[in-house]
Amino acid sequence: MLKQLNIEQIDQLQSYIEERRVVMNPALIGRVSAILEDVRMHGDEAVLRYTKQFDGMELNKLRVSSEELNAQADLCTPEFRRSMQQAKENILFYHQAQISKGYRLEKEMGIYLGQRVLPLDSVGIYVPGGSAQYPSSVLMNALPARLAGVKRIVMLTPPSKEGSIHPNIALAAKLVGIDEVYKVGGAQGIAALAYGTQSIAKVDKIVGPGNVYVACAKKLVFGDVDIDMIAGPSEILVIGDEGANPKWIAADLLSQAEHDPQASAVLLAVSQNMVDAVKQELQKQTRCLPRQKIIHESLENYGLALVCESLQQCVDISNQIAPEHLELMVDKPEELLPLVRHAGSVFLGYATCESVGDYFGGTNHVLPTGGTARFFNPLGVDSFVKKSSYLHYSIEALQAYGDSIITLAEAEQLQAHANAVKARCKT
Amino acid sequence: MLKQLNIEQIDQLQSYIEERRVVMNPALIGRVSAILEDVRMHGDEAVLRYTKQFDGMELNKLRVSSEELNAQADLCTPEFRRSMQQAKENILFYHQAQISKGYRLEKEMGIYLGQRVLPLDSVGIYVPGGSAQYPSSVLMNALPARLAGVKRIVMLTPPSKEGSIHPNIALAAKLVGIDEVYKVGGAQGIAALAYGTQSIAKVDKIVGPGNVYVACAKKLVFGDVDIDMIAGPSEILVIGDEGANPKWIAADLLSQAEHDPQASAVLLAVSQNMVDAVKQELQKQTRCLPRQKIIHESLENYGLALVCESLQQCVDISNQIAPEHLELMVDKPEELLPLVRHAGSVFLGYATCESVGDYFGGTNHVLPTGGTARFFNPLGVDSFVKKSSYLHYSIEALQAYGDSIITLAEAEQLQAHANAVKARCKT
Repeated sequence: MLKQLNIEQIDQLQSYIEERRVVMNPALIGRVSAILEDVRMHGDEAVLRYTKQFDGMELNKLRVSSEELNAQADLCTPEFRRSMQQAKENILFYHQAQISKGYRLEKEMGIYLGQRVLPLDSVGIYVPGGSAQYPSSVLMNALPARLAGVKRIVMLTPPSKEGSIHPNIALAAKLVGIDEVYKVGGAQGIAALAYGTQSIAKVDKIVGPGNVYVACAKKLVFGDVDIDMIAGPSEILVIGDEGANPKWIAADLLSQAEHDPQASAVLLAVSQNMVDAVKQELQKQTRCLPRQKIIHESLENYGLALVCESLQQCVDISNQIAPEHLELMVDKPEELLPLVRHAGSVFLGYATCESVGDYFGGTNHVLPTGGTARFFNPLGVDSFVKKSSYLHYSIEALQAYGDSIITLAEAEQLQAHANAVKARCKT
Repeated sequence: MLKQLNIEQIDQLQSYIEERRVVMNPALIGRVSAILEDVRMHGDEAVLRYTKQFDGMELNKLRVSSEELNAQADLCTPEFRRSMQQAKENILFYHQAQISKGYRLEKEMGIYLGQRVLPLDSVGIYVPGGSAQYPSSVLMNALPARLAGVKRIVMLTPPSKEGSIHPNIALAAKLVGIDEVYKVGGAQGIAALAYGTQSIAKVDKIVGPGNVYVACAKKLVFGDVDIDMIAGPSEILVIGDEGANPKWIAADLLSQAEHDPQASAVLLAVSQNMVDAVKQELQKQTRCLPRQKIIHESLENYGLALVCESLQQCVDISNQIAPEHLELMVDKPEELLPLVRHAGSVFLGYATCESVGDYFGGTNHVLPTGGTARFFNPLGVDSFVKKSSYLHYSIEALQAYGDSIITLAEAEQLQAHANAVKARCKT
C-alpha cells in the first residue's frame, strides 16, 4: 500500500506532490465569481439564499446568539475543555516570541526613519463544516491574531444539520474570546467577509481552510482583503534512520493518510529492511482504524517510500519536496535540522509525532502545503499585523541631498518629483 | 482642478479610492490564462512568439549577455551613478534593521521548540518597459532580497525598441549584483518566472509592478509561486496645517498626479484659505510641467480637497482611506504619527516630500495601494524570507501530556492521530 520508488525516480515524487495542488478551472472560477458578485450586490438576502441552496438550511438570522454559543459550549466534556486550555497556553507560549515592535533609526541633520508594526483591525476565521470538526484550528488561527492585537475577530462556520454550531467549535470560540460567530459557509461566507453585508461587517483578512469553493473564493477576493494561503491537501515526509521504530513511523504516516484521499505520506529511509517493516506495520495498523477507506485511497495514490544512500540524501530530497510536515525520526535530529531548507514544520526525534504539533506543542498547524513551504510561512503573529514606514528629513538635510534626489527623479522623467525638492531648496 | 468635497461627502472619497483598484474581468482572465498555459506547455518557443507579437521584437535569445549589460550601464552619467550609489546605501541602512534571526524556547522535560527564518532560494524582479524607466524600483526590490540572503535574483524587462535594455536599468542591475537578466515582458514573462522555460529557471517569488496583464498574471500564478502584491495606481494624501507652504503642498500633489491618469492626490486641510491657495499653486505649477495632460486627467478624476475641523479629524479620514503615501505637513508630525493606523509610508514634517522616500531616504517605495495598507505591508526583508517551525518532545514529555493530545485528536475523530501517541506511550 506504499508505492516504492528508486532513487532515479525522484522526479516522479516531485510531480506527485505538485499534482495535488488545488486546481481552479475556468468553470469553477466562473461559478464562484457569480456567487461573490451576487453577495456583493444583494448582501444578506443572497447569503441566506445560498445557505438554503447549499446547506439545506432556512435561517432567519446569521449571527449565533451568545446564549446559543454558551449552551453549545456547555455540552463539551471536562477532559476536552481541560486539554483545549492546555493547548491554548502552549500556543500562546510559542507565539508570543513572534511579537515585534518596529524600530527607529537616526541619522545626520535631523534625519530619522523607521517602521511601525500595527495590528490588523479585523480578521475573519473560516471554520469548515461537514462530518469532522476541527476546534484545534480555531485556536491556531485566533490566538496569533489575539497576540498581534487584533480587536475584532469573527468566526464563520456553516450551520450543522441541526441548524446550530458544533459544541467543540463553540467552546473553542469562547476560549479565544470570539463572540461574533455566524452560521455561514462556502463562497458566500467568504464573500460576506470580504465585502460585508447588512449583518456581517467586512474584515481585513480571511484565514482558515475550506473546500475547493472556499479556496477559489479566497483566491478571487485576495487583494480586496488579505488571505492566509490557498491550503491544499495535507502531507507528511518522514526521514527514519536505523534506530527508528517502524511501528511509530507507520503510525505517523497513517495519521496523515487518514485526513483525506488526497493526503500524502512519504517515507525516506536508509535501508530496505526499514521500508519493508513499515509496510508490514501499515497493513497491520490500518485494520484497526475507522478511516480505512480514506487511508487506502491516500496511500495508494500518494503514499511513497524511497531508500536513500544517506541521511544527507534524505534531506536533499526532502528539500526538493518542501513538505508541510517533516519528521526527523533520527538519533541526532539537531544535526540534520540546519540542512533542512524548505519545510513548514519540523518534528525532531523519535518521540515527536506530528500530532503533538497538530494539537498541543504550541507551534502552528496552519502550514504551507504542496511544496509552497519554499516561499510561504506558517501562520503566526506576523500574519495579523501590517507594517508602516516613516521618514523625516529636515530642510537642511533636504538641501544637502536635494541634487541627488533631483538627478534620480529626472532620470525617470518625473519632473514634478524633482520640483517638489526644488520648491523647498530655493528658499 | 482639485474637486472639493465637504465633510458630509467623505463616503465618496472612499469610493474614489476603491474604484481605482485593478479590476480583472473574465475576458482578461481568460486571455491571460491562455498565455500562462501556452508558456507552461511550450516554454521558450511561446515566450519568443509572444515577444514578437506584443513587443514587435524578433529575438533569438532571451538572456542579456554580460557584455551587453556592461555596455548599456556604461552609457549612464556619473551623476546618475553617484546618486544611485547613495540611494543604495540609504536603502541598505533602513532595511538591515529588518533582518530577523528566529528564536528557540525551552521547556520542562527536554521540550524545545522554535522558529527558523530562511531566505527564499530565488526571486524574479519584473521591471516594466514602455516610455519611462524606473531604475529606483530595481534597488527597492532587489536590495531587501539581498539582505534576506536570497542567492538567485533574476530580472525580467521587455526589450526596448532597439532590442536592448535601458542603460539606467542595466546600471541598477549591476549595482545590486544581478547578472541574470532577460528581455521578456508581459504575462509571458510572469509565466516564465512561475513555471520555468528552457532558458529561464523558475523562481519562488515574483515582485515588481506592471501593466494590467502583468497584474492579472501575477494574481493567477499566486500559489504556484509567491508574489509581492497586486499594485494599483499610486496615491498620496497630504494633511497640511496652517504653517504648511501651499507651494510645497501643490508640488507634492503634482508629483503624485504626474504618474498616471489613475493616480490620486488628496488634500486634507484645516482651512478653506489653504485649499484655495493650493489650488492656485496647482494651476501655476502645472503650466511648467512636461506631463500636463496626465496631471490634468489625474486631478480631474481623482484629485480631492476637504476642509476638516481639526488635525485629528484629518487623521481619522486618512485612516478610512488607508493611503499608500501620507504626508503630515504639520508643525508637530510626531504627535500625529501615533494616531495613524493605516498608511503604507508616512512622510513627516514640512520638508519631507514624498520624492525623498521614492528615491533616496531609505524606506521602501513598493507600498500597498488602493486602501490595501489596511492589511498589506511595504516590501521589505520579510518579503524575501520564509519561516519554518520546529518542535521536540522527549518520550517522557509525550507520556506526560499524551492523554491531552489523545483527547483532542479523538474529539476530531482522527483516530490515527491519537494512535501515533498511543504507540509511543504503551512501551
